[in-house]
Amino acid sequence: MSRFTLGDTPAHRLWQALRDGEVSPLALWAESNERHARTGEKLNAYKHWMKDAAEAQARAAEAAFAVGVDAGPMQGLPISIKDVYGIKGTPTYAGTARRLPPKYEEEGPIVTTLRRQLAVFPGKTHTVPFAFGGIGGNAHWGAPWNPWDAVHHRGTGGSSSGAGGSLWEGSAVVTVGSDAGGSIRMPASLAGVVGIKPSIGRWNGAGAPPLSPTLDCPGVLALSVADVAFGFAAIDPARLDWPAFHKQIDAHPISGLRIGVPDRHFFTDCGPGIAEGIEAVLKELEGKGAILVKVPLPEIDEAVSYMANGSVGVPEGFAIVSTEFKEWVPELDPNVWARLKNYGDVSAAEYLSRMRARPAMSARAHARLDGIDVLATPTTAVTAPRMDQVQDLESFRLTTLRIGRNVSCFNVWDMAALSMPVAFDPDRLPIGLQLVSGRRREEHLLGCALAVEKALGDARQRLGRPPVCPA
Amino acid sequence: MSRFTLGDTPAHRLWQALRDGEVSPLALWAESNERHARTGEKLNAYKHWMKDAAEAQARAAEAAFAVGVDAGPMQGLPISIKDVYGIKGTPTYAGTARRLPPKYEEEGPIVTTLRRQLAVFPGKTHTVPFAFGGIGGNAHWGAPWNPWDAVHHRGTGGSSSGAGGSLWEGSAVVTVGSDAGGSIRMPASLAGVVGIKPSIGRWNGAGAPPLSPTLDCPGVLALSVADVAFGFAAIDPARLDWPAFHKQIDAHPISGLRIGVPDRHFFTDCGPGIAEGIEAVLKELEGKGAILVKVPLPEIDEAVSYMANGSVGVPEGFAIVSTEFKEWVPELDPNVWARLKNYGDVSAAEYLSRMRARPAMSARAHARLDGIDVLATPTTAVTAPRMDQVQDLESFRLTTLRIGRNVSCFNVWDMAALSMPVAFDPDRLPIGLQLVSGRRREEHLLGCALAVEKALGDARQRLGRPPVCPA
Repeated sequence: MSRFTLGDTPAHRLWQALRDGEVSPLALWAESNERHARTGEKLNAYKHWMKDAAEAQARAAEAAFAVGVDAGPMQGLPISIKDVYGIKGTPTYAGTARRLPPKYEEEGPIVTTLRRQLAVFPGKTHTVPFAFGGIGGNAHWGAPWNPWDAVHHRGTGGSSSGAGGSLWEGSAVVTVGSDAGGSIRMPASLAGVVGIKPSIGRWNGAGAPPLSPTLDCPGVLALSVADVAFGFAAIDPARLDWPAFHKQIDAHPISGLRIGVPDRHFFTDCGPGIAEGIEAVLKELEGKGAILVKVPLPEIDEAVSYMANGSVGVPEGFAIVSTEFKEWVPELDPNVWARLKNYGDVSAAEYLSRMRARPAMSARAHARLDGIDVLATPTTAVTAPRMDQVQDLESFRLTTLRIGRNVSCFNVWDMAALSMPVAFDPDRLPIGLQLVSGRRREEHLLGCALAVEKALGDARQRLGRPPVCPA
Repeated sequence: MSRFTLGDTPAHRLWQALRDGEVSPLALWAESNERHARTGEKLNAYKHWMKDAAEAQARAAEAAFAVGVDAGPMQGLPISIKDVYGIKGTPTYAGTARRLPPKYEEEGPIVTTLRRQLAVFPGKTHTVPFAFGGIGGNAHWGAPWNPWDAVHHRGTGGSSSGAGGSLWEGSAVVTVGSDAGGSIRMPASLAGVVGIKPSIGRWNGAGAPPLSPTLDCPGVLALSVADVAFGFAAIDPARLDWPAFHKQIDAHPISGLRIGVPDRHFFTDCGPGIAEGIEAVLKELEGKGAILVKVPLPEIDEAVSYMANGSVGVPEGFAIVSTEFKEWVPELDPNVWARLKNYGDVSAAEYLSRMRARPAMSARAHARLDGIDVLATPTTAVTAPRMDQVQDLESFRLTTLRIGRNVSCFNVWDMAALSMPVAFDPDRLPIGLQLVSGRRREEHLLGCALAVEKALGDARQRLGRPPVCPA
């Protein structure tokens, strides 16, 4: 056992330690495997645990270090992958009961980029069926267990439902998710981790089934903003040079940071302690020099009705599931299918009129960001729900709505958005703070979030570790 | 009157003459205006003739030359614009009975690029309603008259139906059209001019109503390949430097040019003399050193059934017309509306499944281009039809199909394609040769077409001038 602990030591410290010979890829992999053995069964974060392949990858990373090769930031570090992305030689289920056809299992550029860096892929993490849902349930493979409640089975958030457990158990340093309507930020909020959804097209998301070709967006999650920034740079080596990138974003001061607070929608009708928790955090940041700016955001109203009708994402999801995966439908979770069918079965004319409306909606909302660094909102209007309380169609629908209602507008508007855990609700469940910046301003957003993290302490310092995953 | 004649002197010769002071923009504009007065009424090529604005533009071009300003290739040259593109201060009708709402009349980058070059815009040319049709009819504004038949009213091809008349009458040196399913190549073939449809996205087509956001593609037409190349370079000044571009494409030899001849579909069931005419031309080119290569193209079968169902273009056309232009529908040509409605009113799922199918269809077809320079086919399966014979729904439908069946697959496959007149049918109506190269190979295609033009003589040398527009 090394003195570097997965799930505790910051990623950039592990990066340095690997290069200084203070720890080896095989030792880290052994620790990842051992940690997974400890809480893996309870947390159920992984659809596939890929022991043999990961060990071979760790060995290759180690051999490369031994001959002086630095293939990229992720060399020798365990990174888990949401089971919508293909990894060569591994099946993809995308949260469904069946393995996908080969054309949807192909490895895409993100995984290949990480593979070429000699990353270690310990496993593929769970997702909800066809990555379509915010709670994190899965009738076929069981819903992952939220580490913040040792007694009750609570949802980890969807659709990247295995992300939080994979990070908290310490089997991965960073995890790759995807977010077409909140699927990174919702699980980040409910499982108390950090997750960023870049703006659309920042990265090529090929190598996953095109569930919403318009809105699908790959992103990363980790236990801190600093670790998310590390993973972000690793996926984007052509543009971002680690550690220069870290220095660049680390230069953002909290003092003078202009934080926009929307004047409606986001803070109303939240669960106990949520709006209050975020407001207290904002006050705390103000005390450290941040400037709070009230932002009128009437544009949220048209976005809400746009999303209430299914936006463009649900028709796109319904389109592919009902045609390319029609054999899957009879065994699909009826809650998932009902939402897809009820909001997705529209005419091409209706769908295309929504497509046409989006650029102008986005431009109007972007205009509200003038003069501020980031918008701040609660990420989800509720904390992690108990799975036994969201089984019937109506409570499933209402809970899904409350989990998603603060996040998916930023997919419609194509903004970059991040969630970070900053407080507890009365049940000691984590509350996520969502920070948002404009399209293609991911570096700026990460810099602001890092300033916030330094002001508040990272999640482990501020909230401690979850009860299921003690140190 | 100058010794340079619009509709006869090559564009690049006019370009030089303007720079050598041998002719002036105002003299050219006077000639354009005078030529339009001669045959404009008969040909009916223009929806708007913009006398005052054009004269002011010619004066500005002249003043700029006088102070040594060369603002770009099109300075002082008359270029007509299809009435789907906005020109500041001018209404757009897009072939319909009503003026479009202001947001669809905005001037886009192509017109603005030409304007900044101090081009002269003599007028906006006719199109069919919503640019949707291959014959060239227009119940509201009358169908343009095909200059190749002085006695019978024949279609000029659609949807860029005013393009041919505008060029033959000598009021424009180059004309801008658009092609989502053949709308540049069909009128080029029927009116005996040259037209190129670049691959999609080569140019930004904004500034026209988005009738098919997926397939809409701006392009240029002129009386010769050399003039088309000139117009092409003018629209693309950031990448192409005239006259260096002309020298580059002029270097393509006919000797050794590998011309692919598809083994099915394109040459069968053509009107009298068409397949035979193109085959004779190909033999003629073989005699001058070109190499004819039989190309198996079974991919045409799936493209044909894809298009028979309306492809993605008809649903997109139906989507915008039935929502953004619903007040237009009651007065829309019933032939046009029937085609839009019957093939366009599909579900979002069906539409998106067609969108998904396209990239693989395109890749399979592109693989057939390996080892050849261009594909060659007859452009249209019939020559210009008499308007009195295409009035009922059934003959309209069948003629539209025969005009479009050889061209729209190249929109589906996203290839670059050009039509040039090379022969006569038994009625002395022009027959178009279609040349095709792969996506983003426009420069290569123009080079090959120029080699073919030099081998055969340009249309005026080979076919002479049309009876309605003698020298």
